[in-house]
Amino acid sequence: MAESEYQHPNNLPTIRFGIIGCAAIARKLARAISLAPNATLYAVGSRSLAKAEGFAALVGLSGAVKTYGSYDQVLDDPCVDAVYLPLPTSLHVHWAVVAASKKKHLLLEKPTALDAAELDQILEACRFNGVQFMDGSMWLHHPRTCKMKELLSDQRVFGQINYVYSTSTMTENPEFLQNNIRVKPDLDALGALGDTGWYCIGAILWANDYKLPSTVQALPDTTKNAAGVILSCTASFQWSISSNTATIHCSFLSHTSMDLAISGSNASIRANDFIIPHKEDSALFEFSCGAKFAELHIGWNMDPKEVRVECDMPQEALMVQELARLAQGIKRYGHQPDGKWPEISRKTQLVLDAVRRSIDLGFKPIQL
Amino acid sequence: MAESEYQHPNNLPTIRFGIIGCAAIARKLARAISLAPNATLYAVGSRSLAKAEGFAALVGLSGAVKTYGSYDQVLDDPCVDAVYLPLPTSLHVHWAVVAASKKKHLLLEKPTALDAAELDQILEACRFNGVQFMDGSMWLHHPRTCKMKELLSDQRVFGQINYVYSTSTMTENPEFLQNNIRVKPDLDALGALGDTGWYCIGAILWANDYKLPSTVQALPDTTKNAAGVILSCTASFQWSISSNTATIHCSFLSHTSMDLAISGSNASIRANDFIIPHKEDSALFEFSCGAKFAELHIGWNMDPKEVRVECDMPQEALMVQELARLAQGIKRYGHQPDGKWPEISRKTQLVLDAVRRSIDLGFKPIQL
Repeated sequence: MAESEYQHPNNLPTIRFGIIGCAAIARKLARAISLAPNATLYAVGSRSLAKAEGFAALVGLSGAVKTYGSYDQVLDDPCVDAVYLPLPTSLHVHWAVVAASKKKHLLLEKPTALDAAELDQILEACRFNGVQFMDGSMWLHHPRTCKMKELLSDQRVFGQINYVYSTSTMTENPEFLQNNIRVKPDLDALGALGDTGWYCIGAILWANDYKLPSTVQALPDTTKNAAGVILSCTASFQWSISSNTATIHCSFLSHTSMDLAISGSNASIRANDFIIPHKEDSALFEFSCGAKFAELHIGWNMDPKEVRVECDMPQEALMVQELARLAQGIKRYGHQPDGKWPEISRKTQLVLDAVRRSIDLGFKPIQL
Repeated sequence: MAESEYQHPNNLPTIRFGIIGCAAIARKLARAISLAPNATLYAVGSRSLAKAEGFAALVGLSGAVKTYGSYDQVLDDPCVDAVYLPLPTSLHVHWAVVAASKKKHLLLEKPTALDAAELDQILEACRFNGVQFMDGSMWLHHPRTCKMKELLSDQRVFGQINYVYSTSTMTENPEFLQNNIRVKPDLDALGALGDTGWYCIGAILWANDYKLPSTVQALPDTTKNAAGVILSCTASFQWSISSNTATIHCSFLSHTSMDLAISGSNASIRANDFIIPHKEDSALFEFSCGAKFAELHIGWNMDPKEVRVECDMPQEALMVQELARLAQGIKRYGHQPDGKWPEISRKTQLVLDAVRRSIDLGFKPIQL
């Protein structure tokens, strides 16, 4: 039985993925697709056949995986059900729209587009063609994320969310900061804001049940490279109705961090590896509820509770599995695409656009 | 041998403390004075003798500790070398100036004053009378704080400090939020900003070697009670030369937290109980240096290192010990008061004033 005809226990054939572009992260996704029980890697396409074959060799793909010397060939292959698209951001709108028009379900790497207007073209193409859209925010699929949400959502336990804080930083070398794809104005013009900031913005929206903030304001610490691409920035977010606040800090200039801290009236949650857990098989977060000072304020009445959440598949495989599950529903049962994932992406992009506009306007507050 | 004549191993008599005002925190300080080997609690004064005696009984003070029915009697007692002053903030300037004029070394509870102009009166009185000034920021005296500073200061290890984040929050009940001394405009007009915010501002200045930020801006989430006293606020700070940033969040509306996170180009530090450690005998912080993603970004190359710092005396006793040590140097050897402590307090107060001004001006940036 060829890999692509493997039957999943639910008797549905697996969803066959094509990968468009052989970026480093595509290796991680190739592995994720191989781990997801309802997905198969069917084809890999690059700008040249040699590149695609080099990628297949590097990853150790089975000979059954097709290699193509163009993106179009992947999209024209009728056996490809879904595509993973890790191209530079400026190429997203073109290739994502083509993929949707060829009826391919779409797993699009973040940032989804250069701005919400571009993303809307992509989402409209997906809607028109009845294909599922999802962006590559893997952490949303980790069971830790669900567990944290469960605690956050229990108002009696957590109370009102008052403050969310998130960072995503990594130190890149000087050569990267001038020349890497991710800081080139013609390729990834959003720089650190689009790359690591996508996660921070996603996290504060996630914590707030995707209610958009009323006001977004960048702080004046933004650092850009010679080409004007953001290398580091900080921004604040206000929700006028509930009077809560969030701040994010994203950067290519600071030591690796991915902190998420959520402060409620009765409890708090912290995870310091929320985007990529330290280990694959489980992830931790700190949950604290009812903490008070001990008599005389000489200590606390409790330590924060360390909650460990086991994970039998890596979060990126769970993401692939979820997209494949939705694609199966559409393909086999005529379900509608799930509107949740495009909505999450669109709100993230809208808020990202607002941060960028605030920076462009000299750190003015932007009303949403 | 009476307690007040006890000889410390260095052959200096202990420094004899008076406490002015029997606030709840005075109980903690009475214990701290009893634990500090170079200090003795000599007298306690309240607005009535009954209150002072009630406090002495509650704390279980030895009969040798004098009780006075007025603050003046404590300050007029020639045997009192130093006073601890935990009165409401609006009373600080009067009583601190009187104490200094009576040549008493001064341990002043935070916030030191309603504004820097008031604090300057206090500091000038201390300078004029040659007495030591110190505010009640206990955490600065914990050996954990020194250990973190050691790591931060090693540029080869930590690199440049890019971002500092600090919170200090606690949930108070509705009755407190309208009626407690700490939210009364005529007593503690600075509310949560003066109370928990003092620590946050102190922490970001400490991390930045007490370089003042160039710009201070409150975020528009400030919450006030009916009397206009701040219950919760967030603020951001920019240092123009080094392009680093800090944010703080202080509140009486959120679950107990006291987070400090410092992000450098090569390393990061986190402590989630930086003001009052969970336990008295030791305190933890997380230190991470050289963290990278593992191959394929499917995890990290390391976990953050948990650093435990033992503490043989509580931080408040170390604070008392340090004030007493300086007072001994002045009293016995004619040393000058140490200018470090007044400077730390004054810079903290200046930045606090700027946050308040930003709030009063509708969240405008304030240049320092």
